[in-house]
Amino acid sequence: MAGNTFGTLFTVTTFGESHGKAIGCVVDGCPPGLVLSEVDIQPELDRRKPGTSRHVTQRQESDTVEILSGVYEGKTTGTPIALLIRNEDQRSKDYGNILDTFRPGHADYVYWHKYGIRDPRGGGRSSARLTAPVVAAAAIARKWLHQQYGTTFQGCMSQLGEIVIPFESWEHVPNNAFFAANAAIVPQLEQYMDDLRGAGDSCGARIDVVAQNVPVGLGEPIYDKLDAEIAYAMMGINAVKGVEIGAGFRSIAQKGTEHGDALTPEGFVGNNAGGVLGGISTGQDITVSIAIKPTSSIRSPRPSIDRAGNPVTVETFGRHDPCVGIRATPIAEAMLALVLMDHALRNRAQCGDVKVDTPKIAAQAPLK
Amino acid sequence: MAGNTFGTLFTVTTFGESHGKAIGCVVDGCPPGLVLSEVDIQPELDRRKPGTSRHVTQRQESDTVEILSGVYEGKTTGTPIALLIRNEDQRSKDYGNILDTFRPGHADYVYWHKYGIRDPRGGGRSSARLTAPVVAAAAIARKWLHQQYGTTFQGCMSQLGEIVIPFESWEHVPNNAFFAANAAIVPQLEQYMDDLRGAGDSCGARIDVVAQNVPVGLGEPIYDKLDAEIAYAMMGINAVKGVEIGAGFRSIAQKGTEHGDALTPEGFVGNNAGGVLGGISTGQDITVSIAIKPTSSIRSPRPSIDRAGNPVTVETFGRHDPCVGIRATPIAEAMLALVLMDHALRNRAQCGDVKVDTPKIAAQAPLK
Amino acid sequence: MAGNTFGTLFTVTTFGESHGKAIGCVVDGCPPGLVLSEVDIQPELDRRKPGTSRHVTQRQESDTVEILSGVYEGKTTGTPIALLIRNEDQRSKDYGNILDTFRPGHADYVYWHKYGIRDPRGGGRSSARLTAPVVAAAAIARKWLHQQYGTTFQGCMSQLGEIVIPFESWEHVPNNAFFAANAAIVPQLEQYMDDLRGAGDSCGARIDVVAQNVPVGLGEPIYDKLDAEIAYAMMGINAVKGVEIGAGFRSIAQKGTEHGDALTPEGFVGNNAGGVLGGISTGQDITVSIAIKPTSSIRSPRPSIDRAGNPVTVETFGRHDPCVGIRATPIAEAMLALVLMDHALRNRAQCGDVKVDTPKIAAQAPLK
Amino acid sequence: MAGNTFGTLFTVTTFGESHGKAIGCVVDGCPPGLVLSEVDIQPELDRRKPGTSRHVTQRQESDTVEILSGVYEGKTTGTPIALLIRNEDQRSKDYGNILDTFRPGHADYVYWHKYGIRDPRGGGRSSARLTAPVVAAAAIARKWLHQQYGTTFQGCMSQLGEIVIPFESWEHVPNNAFFAANAAIVPQLEQYMDDLRGAGDSCGARIDVVAQNVPVGLGEPIYDKLDAEIAYAMMGINAVKGVEIGAGFRSIAQKGTEHGDALTPEGFVGNNAGGVLGGISTGQDITVSIAIKPTSSIRSPRPSIDRAGNPVTVETFGRHDPCVGIRATPIAEAMLALVLMDHALRNRAQCGDVKVDTPKIAAQAPLK
Repeated sequence: MAGNTFGTLFTVTTFGESHGKAIGCVVDGCPPGLVLSEVDIQPELDRRKPGTSRHVTQRQESDTVEILSGVYEGKTTGTPIALLIRNEDQRSKDYGNILDTFRPGHADYVYWHKYGIRDPRGGGRSSARLTAPVVAAAAIARKWLHQQYGTTFQGCMSQLGEIVIPFESWEHVPNNAFFAANAAIVPQLEQYMDDLRGAGDSCGARIDVVAQNVPVGLGEPIYDKLDAEIAYAMMGINAVKGVEIGAGFRSIAQKGTEHGDALTPEGFVGNNAGGVLGGISTGQDITVSIAIKPTSSIRSPRPSIDRAGNPVTVETFGRHDPCVGIRATPIAEAMLALVLMDHALRNRAQCGDVKVDTPKIAAQAPLK
Repeated sequence: MAGNTFGTLFTVTTFGESHGKAIGCVVDGCPPGLVLSEVDIQPELDRRKPGTSRHVTQRQESDTVEILSGVYEGKTTGTPIALLIRNEDQRSKDYGNILDTFRPGHADYVYWHKYGIRDPRGGGRSSARLTAPVVAAAAIARKWLHQQYGTTFQGCMSQLGEIVIPFESWEHVPNNAFFAANAAIVPQLEQYMDDLRGAGDSCGARIDVVAQNVPVGLGEPIYDKLDAEIAYAMMGINAVKGVEIGAGFRSIAQKGTEHGDALTPEGFVGNNAGGVLGGISTGQDITVSIAIKPTSSIRSPRPSIDRAGNPVTVETFGRHDPCVGIRATPIAEAMLALVLMDHALRNRAQCGDVKVDTPKIAAQAPLK
Repeated sequence: MAGNTFGTLFTVTTFGESHGKAIGCVVDGCPPGLVLSEVDIQPELDRRKPGTSRHVTQRQESDTVEILSGVYEGKTTGTPIALLIRNEDQRSKDYGNILDTFRPGHADYVYWHKYGIRDPRGGGRSSARLTAPVVAAAAIARKWLHQQYGTTFQGCMSQLGEIVIPFESWEHVPNNAFFAANAAIVPQLEQYMDDLRGAGDSCGARIDVVAQNVPVGLGEPIYDKLDAEIAYAMMGINAVKGVEIGAGFRSIAQKGTEHGDALTPEGFVGNNAGGVLGGISTGQDITVSIAIKPTSSIRSPRPSIDRAGNPVTVETFGRHDPCVGIRATPIAEAMLALVLMDHALRNRAQCGDVKVDTPKIAAQAPLK
Repeated sequence: MAGNTFGTLFTVTTFGESHGKAIGCVVDGCPPGLVLSEVDIQPELDRRKPGTSRHVTQRQESDTVEILSGVYEGKTTGTPIALLIRNEDQRSKDYGNILDTFRPGHADYVYWHKYGIRDPRGGGRSSARLTAPVVAAAAIARKWLHQQYGTTFQGCMSQLGEIVIPFESWEHVPNNAFFAANAAIVPQLEQYMDDLRGAGDSCGARIDVVAQNVPVGLGEPIYDKLDAEIAYAMMGINAVKGVEIGAGFRSIAQKGTEHGDALTPEGFVGNNAGGVLGGISTGQDITVSIAIKPTSSIRSPRPSIDRAGNPVTVETFGRHDPCVGIRATPIAEAMLALVLMDHALRNRAQCGDVKVDTPKIAAQAPLK
């Protein structure tokens, strides 16, 4: 209830701070009998980890995960799965200069006001480093959902600062540092980031994620609707300021005759719904877009105040992502997977197992 | 857990269907000693109720609320407050023609798939009529928050279909059927709606809501962040497809030097944060925008399927809102109030009562 | 979280006070498709209702239940089921004399201290009248569990004050006012109660309840163990001071060789476990005993204090049960049913549906 | 929801198995600013740890706790506190002989039925070893409650098998292996245990626990009553079969005139209530008794079945407690502390901070 557990039936309780001894989580509610080892989890962590290109923080972490419990002879037992990741590269002195001042746009100020104490090392608990345990937990969910329903998750960056990235193909995503589904635009993105870094500034990004082969019937209206829970999960990712499902904000100017996806014996035509109607999955792809704000830890000097309320100028040194959106794609995929996993279990509690023969979905336009 | 309770410490458990005997809710967790009667609740219900202009559904409901419990000699006792609203104008025959077919863009299809049974009368549980008990419950939250912190809530429509509505003044909002903060544009909105109704079509809308005098420190990271919970609450409103906090999707193209609201001894300068940093309220105004899709129940014929999977043409008659966004403003205000109320209690559980002397906020630009 | 919701997946949220307008509840999470009407619920309420013999409170209430939602054409739809019972016989003046004083052994004192306000009419929210909505909700659970697994619930009084009631046969239970499984002892019980009433005093009771045909596998260790949840449910009934599962306190003096129920190909031999091992149902009968304290509202004068802390003498007039245990049997059955229902859903969320072919249970000794 | 989190606002999520790599927990909701280090926790673990006398399991574990997160510069920050205890002495071969058979009275059978898989090493998740993380977490709660209200917790064994242990003085408790509040009886207890061990048998025990200086007003009726939650916590401890609050089962034969604790200007007289009325703490001592069954892992051969349902004879070798009650006292104290901590936070969420000036309690008889 203090907010560090995600989910209701498939729960992920995380712990740790950016520069503490370790980060990790306890996953409770995983169905028994799932074949599981670190090999299933590490690749997702590797997609998210820092230090892999010059465009992200240079902190070096292997992010090696250790399963401490819940698995016996290679299978989940239905008991809690604890995942541990030791912090390796802490260098907390980098952060000493922000002890008494507040960075504009950063959580410093509110943590200090709320708790009366705050761990300033690397942002403490508010650091995006805390998305690592979630990505690890989601790897378990992804494996189960894939086995059970064939569900898959993909994501890509569709905008970096002012640069819109046209969708070309999913195959490009693993081949560039930006998770862009477009190979040709990568040099332009790199130049943009280099300029930004030179200027001591940061920028935002848009990330799109898609879940395919989602069974019909997931979501618990009228409050724990699937899209409501997705919005909660996505807005809870560090730096996210907006969430769209399906047509999102484009729905405002649409007419009803245009927006409603026609049903045919072969499936839905189009996907303005983004895979959710009335808060319940339709069997269409679930499509989500999020807006990520520019990082608040930047080198450029800015006016702020200190803890006594006096005016100061703040400059942030140290190792920071100039665009947290660059590493956000695997995180957004993870959050979506956790929501679907949780609702798969919730749905079968009340309604029994879903029928997997979801209606065939008619060909859809590419993501955007 | 089946999804019909909103909140964790200030909980609202609703019941009822569009055309059942009654709708209502049980509010649990209200602090004791609050002066409360129906007079505090009815005005908010009246702002939301149907049949008040030609631009909304013509269903006639007085939406009269009765407090059944939890109040003794005019004060809350700390025990559950049950609120009951009898349905009056049901006319369920209007909906007979949709029994065996599914409206494109409507929850019909998924309810039937999920539960194997569905109440077709007026959309049953999926009807926007079910926002009435929430508006009623939120009136209690609003009163307590106002007494405790001086917090207030306002909202307006800022776009209707293609028509952007420039913000003029809050004083216009109660004086037109659209909750527009602009008097001059009202004739244009009326013409737009008349044309739409003539065409048997529907349109979307954008609603903005603001909470003022919010204490610093509300929100429970790292999952139950204040903005995450707001996103959950807003996306859970019928027909919402997108949610923004503060600068929202505009953050993508902003630079860090531009986005981060400077702190000064007099307060924050600007409000790109929308009143939330790191998932915790800053003391700035909380600003939220939502995208509402066009209504799916329209007169224009559309292709669909019946329950056997055969192709059919669907036309929806009966009394429907051609733009559910028109009545959405008080609903969005209500959801925001419920989130803040819940987090006010959650915050004081762990951290004790918040200090009300929040930093003075520097003058801000109007909403848009 | 304020404590008025019972259960986690099959939830019952109650409202109302002894002398308010109405009492009732919202049942959320009921599986869809269950045939249900008031006819399924009323008989259980009738078993519990007051005024049916001279040994219980003379308050006259028909306790007529009305289903307000969640049922369409005679079947549950998976949406919340609201149950309403109007209070009829209130006579609140009877209670005027306890406004400013506290009855020894009564909740008066703590409600006033906790909430700073209390509804003195008939004990307000702390009245045993509030068990009526739970009995109503449990009737739904009982019907579903019986259909799904053949599970049944029975209970009886096994001690009244000093009088131990030897178990003879379940068939006697519906034929006397005490729910005694023994016909011969009834005159003695009646005399005991008449003497007690004459003396202006009250007494305690022991109630035994049994669930039969319980599937193996219900219970969520290591905290939400089935027996832990049963203990919670039973200790939460008004006036309960002790709970035993299976051999209960007799286990203390047992040896391991005696206590552990042997397993045979035909089933378990004996039932010291009371149907639960390691917090999970074994397929044996679930057997529970509870201790009910004597009613605190008695005519005999007793020393106490008033709200200012001054010494006073308290006498309670009005209509009170001289032994709340007399009507407790259907309540204890109801609580047990709610726990099993909740855990049936919880179990299938994580583990899928239980196999109903539970091991045959060897002949067991009668209840005591 | 899968049952491995204890509490609602002060939550303890545990993980681990008897012979896995590690056990531990995540404590969420701890108020910020509490001075905390391993030194506050280790002594409680030491009171519970195995191998400290010949009367308990000979497994050697240092049970050294490591705080992984949630503490910065010696103070809690309000973020999750992760506690890790590595398992050292595993010797899992000891348990090989129970892989395919079920011990009468043991959780083997139900874990296998529920999950379809079970970790047989030392009882896996069902082992009483899993009480260690709870004892560790409770040390934090105890420290906070003591600072805030002066609340203290004590417990003792009051019966071992057939031997009733008269209460003499709390000062004896730390000076014998049994947590007996009586020095003279210790040789008799030792002889009893030696005989039992010689016979390859086990026995039960009764444990009493008391909380003193509990503020008035804790408990959330009408379901999350303080005594209901205590019953849940206690019945959830391994091997517990019965729970009493205050007069417990003695209430049955009491009269109302005898049972109700009189209120005087100096406080309550007597404590049949056990410190709870109407589910809310009264300010009296909270007194709880629990019945612990004899251990199921005994050397004496007993009839059982194997996984195929064939009859077998089971003998259990290895290192087991012949009376799990011997180490249960610190565990029962811990569970009581966790319940009070959780309700202290819950109470202040709805009602604000409790007034600590609880009524003075008149002299009370010794525990029994």
